[in-house]
Amino acid sequence: MAKEDGFRTQKRVSSASSAAAGVLPTTMASGAGRRPPPRGRQIQKTFNNVKMTILCGFVTILVLRGTIGVNFGTSDADVVNQNIIEETNRLLAEIRSDSDLSDSNEPPDSDLDLNMTYTLGPKITNWDQQRKLWLTQNPDFPSFVNGKAKVLLLTGSPPKPCDNPIGDHYLLKSVKNKIDYCRIHGIEIVYNMAHLDKELAGYWAKLPMIRRLMLSHPEIEWIWWMDSDALFTDMVFEIPLSRYENHNLVIHGYPDLLFDQKSWIALNTGSFLFRNCQWSLDLLDAWAPMGPKGPIREEAGKILTANLKGRPAFEADDQSALIYLLLSQKETWMEKVFVENQYYLHGFWEGLVDRYEEMIEKYHPGLGDERWPFITHFVGCKPCGSYADYAVERCLKSMERAFNFADNQVLKLYGFGHRGLLSPKIKRIRNETTFPLKFVNRFDIRRTTPLKIEARS
Amino acid sequence: MAKEDGFRTQKRVSSASSAAAGVLPTTMASGAGRRPPPRGRQIQKTFNNVKMTILCGFVTILVLRGTIGVNFGTSDADVVNQNIIEETNRLLAEIRSDSDLSDSNEPPDSDLDLNMTYTLGPKITNWDQQRKLWLTQNPDFPSFVNGKAKVLLLTGSPPKPCDNPIGDHYLLKSVKNKIDYCRIHGIEIVYNMAHLDKELAGYWAKLPMIRRLMLSHPEIEWIWWMDSDALFTDMVFEIPLSRYENHNLVIHGYPDLLFDQKSWIALNTGSFLFRNCQWSLDLLDAWAPMGPKGPIREEAGKILTANLKGRPAFEADDQSALIYLLLSQKETWMEKVFVENQYYLHGFWEGLVDRYEEMIEKYHPGLGDERWPFITHFVGCKPCGSYADYAVERCLKSMERAFNFADNQVLKLYGFGHRGLLSPKIKRIRNETTFPLKFVNRFDIRRTTPLKIEARS
Repeated sequence: MAKEDGFRTQKRVSSASSAAAGVLPTTMASGAGRRPPPRGRQIQKTFNNVKMTILCGFVTILVLRGTIGVNFGTSDADVVNQNIIEETNRLLAEIRSDSDLSDSNEPPDSDLDLNMTYTLGPKITNWDQQRKLWLTQNPDFPSFVNGKAKVLLLTGSPPKPCDNPIGDHYLLKSVKNKIDYCRIHGIEIVYNMAHLDKELAGYWAKLPMIRRLMLSHPEIEWIWWMDSDALFTDMVFEIPLSRYENHNLVIHGYPDLLFDQKSWIALNTGSFLFRNCQWSLDLLDAWAPMGPKGPIREEAGKILTANLKGRPAFEADDQSALIYLLLSQKETWMEKVFVENQYYLHGFWEGLVDRYEEMIEKYHPGLGDERWPFITHFVGCKPCGSYADYAVERCLKSMERAFNFADNQVLKLYGFGHRGLLSPKIKRIRNETTFPLKFVNRFDIRRTTPLKIEARS
Repeated sequence: MAKEDGFRTQKRVSSASSAAAGVLPTTMASGAGRRPPPRGRQIQKTFNNVKMTILCGFVTILVLRGTIGVNFGTSDADVVNQNIIEETNRLLAEIRSDSDLSDSNEPPDSDLDLNMTYTLGPKITNWDQQRKLWLTQNPDFPSFVNGKAKVLLLTGSPPKPCDNPIGDHYLLKSVKNKIDYCRIHGIEIVYNMAHLDKELAGYWAKLPMIRRLMLSHPEIEWIWWMDSDALFTDMVFEIPLSRYENHNLVIHGYPDLLFDQKSWIALNTGSFLFRNCQWSLDLLDAWAPMGPKGPIREEAGKILTANLKGRPAFEADDQSALIYLLLSQKETWMEKVFVENQYYLHGFWEGLVDRYEEMIEKYHPGLGDERWPFITHFVGCKPCGSYADYAVERCLKSMERAFNFADNQVLKLYGFGHRGLLSPKIKRIRNETTFPLKFVNRFDIRRTTPLKIEARS
C-alpha cells in the first residue's frame, strides 16, 4: 500500500539517519502491519533523535578535547602554549629514549663478577708522595692561599630533566645559593651532571667523582661534597679547617648514635669533606663495594638493615654503608674521622625552617649552629623526583623560605632584601647614596672576621 | 478500568524510573485511552533505557576523570605521581599569586612622572676618584691579580619557575656551563634572580644590576653581562682584555651594520663587558630612560622601530635602545666603545650548531671564532618562555649539542667525553692510570697559554 510503503520508507530513512547519527533506534525496524504514528508522536520522536545526536556529539567533543586542543573559553595563546608544552614533553621522551638507544649501539660491558670486589679504579698507593712532588714542581698552583687551604665544593644532579617540573627550578635556586656562598668565601665549584660509573649511579655517584677530582686537582686540599637539596643558610660562617689538622674526613653526626646505637642516621653524607690524600683514596675504595647496582646493592642493603638501628629495608645507600664501614673497621678509620656537631655542617630542615624569623630577631649570621644554621638540608623532600617522604607543600614552602633567608644575607650588601621569606620580590632596605663605598666596608661579608667556635662541654 | 489503571500506574512508574535514571522519556506521560504496549515492545524500551543509563554514566565518568583522577589502566604510582605534579602546579600558582598579594599590602609607589627622565639612582660624578682611593686603602682587594684584571660575570633569570617545564632544566645546564668556564678562568659569578627595579624588568633588568655591582664591588675591573641563553663553547679561549685598555665597553657587532645600515641587530647585548668606571655609570644613565615599562617603553619602541632598519614593532628593548643611543650620540660615546667581531663574544647559534663535528675534526679549542666559537648564543629560542621564534625541537636539540660540545672540553681533564653530542651519557676516553698527574699537566686548561688573536685585515 502506498501508505505502508510510505511508512516503511520513512522508517528506513529514520533508522538510517539514526544510525548515521549514532543514535539508538527508537522504533522497530520492521514496519509490517503497523499503523503510521500520529503526527505529535512523530515530532516527539524527531525531538528525541535530535537530543540524542546533540548528546553524542557533546560526548565526542569531550573525549577529543585533549587531542585536538579545543578548550572552551581559552585563547589562541593558551593553545599555542599548550602545544609548545606538549611538544616539549614529546622531545623530552625522545631525548631520554635516544640516550637509551645510543647505549644499545655500544658493546655491553662485561657483567660484574660478583666474586670480585668492585673497585673505583687501579689501586694507587703513593698518592701523598705524588701530590707533594707535584705541588713542589708547580708553585703557581699552591694548595694554600693566604693561609687558607684550597677547597672545592662538589655538587650535582642527574643529567636528565626532573620528573617533577618544579624540581629543576629548585635545583637552579640551590646552585645559585652555592654560587653565592662560594664566591664570598673563595671556594671553587664543580657541578656534576654526569655518571662517571654506571654501576655507581644515584646517591653513590659522588664516590667516583670525589676520587676523580682528587686525582685531577692536586692543588685542592679539601673536596667538599654537598647534596643538591642542601642550602647554605649562614653566608658568613666558615668551616674552621684548622680544627681538622689531624683529620681527613669531616662529617656531621653524633658519636653516641654511631657507636652506642649504631643508628643508620648517626652520620649524614649530605655534606662532608675529604682531605686530598692517600687515606681518603683508601677509604673511598673500602666504601665503594656495596654500591654497584643490582644484586650487590640489594644484598648489601639487607646486611645494612640487619645491622643498623632504624634502617628500613631498601637497597644499600652510601650513608648506611659508610656508617657500617666505620663501625666494623673502627680501629682502621676512626682516628682520622672528625664527627662534627658543634655547627650544622648538615642541619635537618624540619626543626629549623619555622624558626627563621626568630633567628632574625634574636641572632645574627656567623654562628652556624642552631641559632643560625650553617646549612639547612631538605632530607626527604626530593623536589626532583616523584616520591617524597614529606608533603609537597611543606617542602616547597620551606625551601623557598630557606633560600630567601640566605639570599637576604647576600642582598644586604646591595641594599635589598626580600619582602617576606616566601616572596621572590625584593625591596630596598636602605636609601641610595652617592657614596656607596661606606656600605661596602660595612656589609661586604668578605671583610667579616669569622667567629671562632667555642669549645662546648 | 483496572487495566487502564494498571497501565497508567505502570507508565508513571516507568516515567519515574526514567526520570530517576536521567533517561529521556520514550513514552508520552499521558496514558489516557491507550492500549498497554506488547511485551516485546516493553522489553525493547527497557533495553533502550538501560543503554541510555550506561551511556550517561560513561559521559559522567569521562567528564569527571580529570577531577577525581580515575585513569583507565594506570598504576597507583602514576596516580601518586600525577597527584604530586598537580599539587605542585597548584602551589606554583599560589606562590605566584602570593607574591602579587604581598605587593598589594605595600603602599603603591608613586606613578612615574612621564615628564621626568627616569634615573637608575642618584647621580654620582666622581666614581673614578672614589674607587681609586678605596683600592689604595684596601690592598687586600686588588683589581688586578697576577697581571690579570678581575672580572665578574653577571647572568640570571626571572625569580619564578619557567612557563615551559624544560626551561628551568636548560637554565640549570646553562649555569653549570658558566660555572665551568669561570672556575677554569678565575672569574666570579653573580647569578641574579631578583628585580632590583620593578620598572626595569625583563631584558632591562641587567642595567640596575650592572650599576649596583659596580658600586658594590670596587675591586672588580670588568662587569661582564651574559644572557642565560648563551653558552660557552670554547673553554680555552680568554677575552683579550689588553686589547681594550683604552675602551670601557666591549660589545660584539659590525660597524657597517651600525653606522651605515643602522640595523637593529648591529650590536648584541647578550654578552658585553663594562669597565667599572665613571664613563660606564654615565652610559648606563643615558641608556636607561627608554626602559621603564608601560607608556614610556611603548612609545620608545615606536621611535626605535622608525629609526632602526629591520626592527619589528614592539616595545623598546635594551639592545635597540643602546644602538639608537650610540648612533644619536656618536661623538659622546663611540670613542670608548669597542665593537668586537674578531671572535664570537656573541655567536648566533644557527650558523654554528650544525658544524660542531666538523670543528672537532678540523680545529681545536682556543680559537674563539667561527672555527671554534667562544660563545654560542641561542637568540630567539626562549626555552623558559612560551613563545619562541624557532621550532622547539630545533632549539632544544641544538642547545643540547652546544652544551655537550662544551662539556667535552671540561670532561677531558677527567678522562671522559659524551657518547654523542646529543647524549647526556659519558664514556671513558682514556684508560685509568696509577699516575694521573701526567694527564693533569697535559689537559688542565689552566695550563694552556691563551692564543693571541692575530690582527685580521
